Amino acid sequence: MQAPSKRPDRSGRSWWGWGDESGQLTPAEADELVGRVSALLPGHDLTEHAPPDPAALGVPEPRITPPAALAALCSDAPVDRLGHARGKAFRDVVRNLTGDLGPVPDLVVRPRTEQDVVDVLDWCTSTGTPVDPYGGGSSVFGGVEPRFEGPAVSLDLEHLDQVVEVDPVSRAARIQGGVYGPALEAQLKPHGLTLRHFPQSFEFSTLGGWLATRAGGHFATLATHIDDLTESLRVVTPAGTSTSRRLPGSGAGPSPDRLFLGSEGALGVITEAWMRLQDRPVWQRTATAGFASYDAAVAATRALAQSGLHPSNCRLLDPAEALINAGTAVDGGLLIVAFESADHPVDAWFDRVLELVADHGGTVLATRDRSAEASTAEGDADASQAWRSSFIRMPYQRDTLARRAMIVETFETACTWDAFPTFHAAVTAAAQRAIAEVCGGQGVVTCRFTHVYPDGPAPYYGIYAGGRWGSTLAQWDEIKAAVSDAIIAHGGTITHHHAVGRDHRPWYDEQRPEPFAQALRAAKAALDPAGVLNPGVLV
Amino acid sequence: MQAPSKRPDRSGRSWWGWGDESGQLTPAEADELVGRVSALLPGHDLTEHAPPDPAALGVPEPRITPPAALAALCSDAPVDRLGHARGKAFRDVVRNLTGDLGPVPDLVVRPRTEQDVVDVLDWCTSTGTPVDPYGGGSSVFGGVEPRFEGPAVSLDLEHLDQVVEVDPVSRAARIQGGVYGPALEAQLKPHGLTLRHFPQSFEFSTLGGWLATRAGGHFATLATHIDDLTESLRVVTPAGTSTSRRLPGSGAGPSPDRLFLGSEGALGVITEAWMRLQDRPVWQRTATAGFASYDAAVAATRALAQSGLHPSNCRLLDPAEALINAGTAVDGGLLIVAFESADHPVDAWFDRVLELVADHGGTVLATRDRSAEASTAEGDADASQAWRSSFIRMPYQRDTLARRAMIVETFETACTWDAFPTFHAAVTAAAQRAIAEVCGGQGVVTCRFTHVYPDGPAPYYGIYAGGRWGSTLAQWDEIKAAVSDAIIAHGGTITHHHAVGRDHRPWYDEQRPEPFAQALRAAKAALDPAGVLNPGVLV
Repeated sequence: MQAPSKRPDRSGRSWWGWGDESGQLTPAEADELVGRVSALLPGHDLTEHAPPDPAALGVPEPRITPPAALAALCSDAPVDRLGHARGKAFRDVVRNLTGDLGPVPDLVVRPRTEQDVVDVLDWCTSTGTPVDPYGGGSSVFGGVEPRFEGPAVSLDLEHLDQVVEVDPVSRAARIQGGVYGPALEAQLKPHGLTLRHFPQSFEFSTLGGWLATRAGGHFATLATHIDDLTESLRVVTPAGTSTSRRLPGSGAGPSPDRLFLGSEGALGVITEAWMRLQDRPVWQRTATAGFASYDAAVAATRALAQSGLHPSNCRLLDPAEALINAGTAVDGGLLIVAFESADHPVDAWFDRVLELVADHGGTVLATRDRSAEASTAEGDADASQAWRSSFIRMPYQRDTLARRAMIVETFETACTWDAFPTFHAAVTAAAQRAIAEVCGGQGVVTCRFTHVYPDGPAPYYGIYAGGRWGSTLAQWDEIKAAVSDAIIAHGGTITHHHAVGRDHRPWYDEQRPEPFAQALRAAKAALDPAGVLNPGVLV
Repeated sequence: MQAPSKRPDRSGRSWWGWGDESGQLTPAEADELVGRVSALLPGHDLTEHAPPDPAALGVPEPRITPPAALAALCSDAPVDRLGHARGKAFRDVVRNLTGDLGPVPDLVVRPRTEQDVVDVLDWCTSTGTPVDPYGGGSSVFGGVEPRFEGPAVSLDLEHLDQVVEVDPVSRAARIQGGVYGPALEAQLKPHGLTLRHFPQSFEFSTLGGWLATRAGGHFATLATHIDDLTESLRVVTPAGTSTSRRLPGSGAGPSPDRLFLGSEGALGVITEAWMRLQDRPVWQRTATAGFASYDAAVAATRALAQSGLHPSNCRLLDPAEALINAGTAVDGGLLIVAFESADHPVDAWFDRVLELVADHGGTVLATRDRSAEASTAEGDADASQAWRSSFIRMPYQRDTLARRAMIVETFETACTWDAFPTFHAAVTAAAQRAIAEVCGGQGVVTCRFTHVYPDGPAPYYGIYAGGRWGSTLAQWDEIKAAVSDAIIAHGGTITHHHAVGRDHRPWYDEQRPEPFAQALRAAKAALDPAGVLNPGVLV
C-alpha cells in the first residue's frame, strides 16, 4: 500500500527534556504552575535553571567507524548522539539540566530497510559492538541508555515508519516498528480503522518501542497492554529473523510472540508487526463520580472491574490526584468511566455503572455523551476533560518544575484487590518516609488507577517534593529505591507498563522466578551469542 | 483451607477408550447410532469388534526399579501402566482395540506432595530416566505417550487435587495441578465461585493438563484459553521451582507464565496455579439462528466477533454439523449465541445480536432465558440444547463407531477472517480428497467454530468416514497428514487448543519461527539439562 509518508519534523525535539521545544509551557503557564506550587510548598526555592548549551558539554569523539556499506546510515553529530544518550525520565532530564554527561552512543544508525537492520546487527555481532534499539527514546527506566564501558551504537528505527498493508476484513494491519503514534493513526484513518493505543508518550514513541516494552495504552480493561493487540511479530535477531504467523489465537506450544513482547531490545529488533485494529468509535459515554471515602471508591471500582462491563476507560483518582490534575475537590476519590463502541449504543452498560456508583455511595458529578446522534455534557465541572488535557501536558510540567529543583516523578505497579489496602498503605508510607528523610518533609504522594482487572488494579503513583538544586537526582533515587523495595516486599510488580530498563533491574531480578531467569539467559545466548543487544537489560 | 477431598472413583476408567466404562453407549443407543450411520454410509461393514483382554496383551516387565524412598508412590501393575501408555485420540483407541501394544511406561508414579514431585524429578534426572507428566491422560495428540526407546516413568498428579486457598476479594484461588474438572468446581462451589473452564474433556482432564496444553474452554470470546484465566504458576523443574507472583497484569519483561503455558510437560511440572475465577452467572440468554447460506452465516459471526459484545458462547455449525450433532436441518449454517452475567441482565447485548442476525438475513429459530427471574424457551426445537448434550457424548459415540471400523475424528485450527474462505475450501478439499483416496469416497467433513476473535475464527472439523477394520489407523493417519499439510500451507495453526504433543510435531516445526525454536531449545536445556522431561515433545 505504501501510503505517502507523514514523517514528522523532528528538528524541534528537545535534547534535554520531554517532546518538542514548542510544546514547553509558555512563560504564563509556567508562572501559573509555579504559583500553585509555591502555595503548596511555601519556602521551596523556585529559582529557574536553564539547560546547558549542548555544544559546550564536551561530547567525546566517536570511538568507532562504521563499515563503508553502512556509513550512509550513520550519524556522529554530537547533539544527535546526545539526544540518543538517554530516555526521558525525571532522572534523565535532571542529568541533562545539570550537564551530567553519561555514556553517549558513538554512532546513531538509521536503517532504511529491514536488510539494513540485519546488516547492522551482523556488523555489531562480528565486531562485538553493543547496539541499543531506539524507538522514540521516551524510555523512563534507562532502556535506551548505553550504560556500560566501551563503544555503543544507537539503532534508531525512525525510517521504518510505514503501514505496509491493511486487512479490513480481519481488521488488522502490517506496520513497521519505527512508526510514531500520530503517523500510525494518520495512515490508518483513511481506512476507517484505528489501533487505539494512546500511551501518555503517544506523540513521542513508536510501535516497536511499545511492543518491546509491553506498553500500556488506551483501554483500561481487556486489551490493557499492546500485547493484546498483537497478531504477529517480525523480529530480526543475530541468529536469524523470526516471523510468527498471523493467528487470532493459537495453542501450539508456548507463544513465540510472548517471548519477544517485553524483550526490551535484548533479544532482537522488532521490525514489523501485524496489529489488531478497531473501527473508529461512534458511541461514547463518560461519567465522572465522586466518593466520600477512598475505601468506597476502591470498592466501587472493584465491582466495576468484576462486572463484565469492560469500560474502555476506568480511572480512579485519589483526592490529591483529583485536585492537582483534574482540578476537582473530592473527599474520597474521583472515578472516571467511559464506554465506547463502533457497533451499538452503550447506554445499557453506562446505566449499569451509574447503579454501581450509587450502590457504593458515590455521586455522579458529570456525564458526557459524544455519541454520533448526541453531544451533551451535564454537571458543574467536567473533571474527565480537565484530567485528559492535564495528562498530555504532565511531562512538560514536570520539566518546568525540574528546572526549579522540584522532584516530580511517577512510578506504577499492579497488585491483587485483596492485597491493595495493605500494599497501598505500605507504598505510600515508604514514599512519605523517604521524602521526609531526603527532602525534609515537603511533598505530596498521589495515586490513580490507570488500568483495572477483575483480580486487581494497576496503581500509578505521583511524587511531588521540593528538592535541592544539584541534589534532586540523588534525592529521587533514594525515594525510588524506598518505594521499589516496598512494592516488591508487598507482592507487586516493579512495572505494570513502563518496562524494566536498567533502573528497575535490582527489583526485577527479585521478582522474576529464578528458573525463568535461567531460561531467559539461555534464550538470549541462543539468539544473541555475542551479547551485543542492549547489554544490561533483562539478563 | 483443605476442603475435604472429593476424589472421584477412577476404578471404572476405560483402559482402551474414552472416560468411564459406565459412560459407554447403551446397546439401544449404539443401535440407534449405528442405524443412522448405515443410512448415511450404506455398504459400510458395521461389524462390532470388542476390545482385547488387557491381561492377554503381554505388557512387558518393568525395566526399572524405583529407589526405596519413592517405592510407595509407584505402581507397576500392567493394566495401570497400560492405562498410562497413551492418550484418548481416535488413533489411541484404535491401537488399543486392535491390541497394538506400543511403548508402555515402566512405572506409574503418583506423588502425594510437591516435594515428591521434586524427588521424582531428581531421581529421573540423576538416572537419565524419561518422565512424562500425566494429568487426566485425555491428550489427543500423543502428549503422554512414551514414544521413545528405553524405560519411562509416567508421573500421575492425581493426588495433588486440592483447592488450597480462595481469595474471594480478588476472585482467585490457589489450586493444585492434579485436580480434575468436577472436583475443582465442587470445591469452588461453596464459595459461590467458578473457574468456568469446560472443555469437552472436563470430566477426565486436570487443571495442570489444561495449563500445560493451553486448553480451550467455555468462553467463545475473550478468555478463550486457560492462559487468560491464569494469575500465577508454580512449576517444578529439574533446575528449581519457579513461582511467579500473583499479578493481575505486569509488564516486567517477557511473561514468565507464558513460557510455561503450553510447555506440555517438557519444561517442568505445574504443581499449582492461582486461577482467576468468576461469580456464578445469574442471567443467561441463548439464541439459535439459521442462515440460508454459509457465507452469510460466517459474515454474521464475524460481525458479532467484531462487535465488542463478547458473547460467552458463539458457535457456528455448518449444515452437516448442525444435522449430525444438533439434529437441525439448515441450508447455510446454525449459529448458537449465549450471554451470561452475574452482574446485570444481558438483554441489551442479546437484542443487539438479534439485530445482527437479521441484518445478515438470518432467522432466529429459538431463544432461551435461564436468568434468575425467568425461565423460558421459545421456538420449535432448541438446537442449542441438543448440541450441548451431543457435545459431551461425542467421544463415547466415536468409540462405538471406532469398534465398527468407522473413522471418526476431529482436528482444529485458527486463521484470520480474510483467509477463511480460501483456507476452509482448501482444508475441506484436502480432507475429502484424502477420504476418497484412502476410504473409497465414503465420508463426511463437518465444520464448526468453537471460538471466535475479532481477527478470525477457530474452526473445528469433524471427519466421519467408513474404514476397513485393521486399516483405520493408517487410513486416519493419511487423512490427518493431508489436512495438516493444507492447514500449514494456508496459514493456519496446527492447533488452536488441542496442543502439539508428538503427532503434530512435523507441522509445528514448520509453523514455529526458527529463532524461537532455538530460544526454546536453549530454555529447555537450561531447565532440564538431562533432557528427561517428556522427550520428543516441543523440542
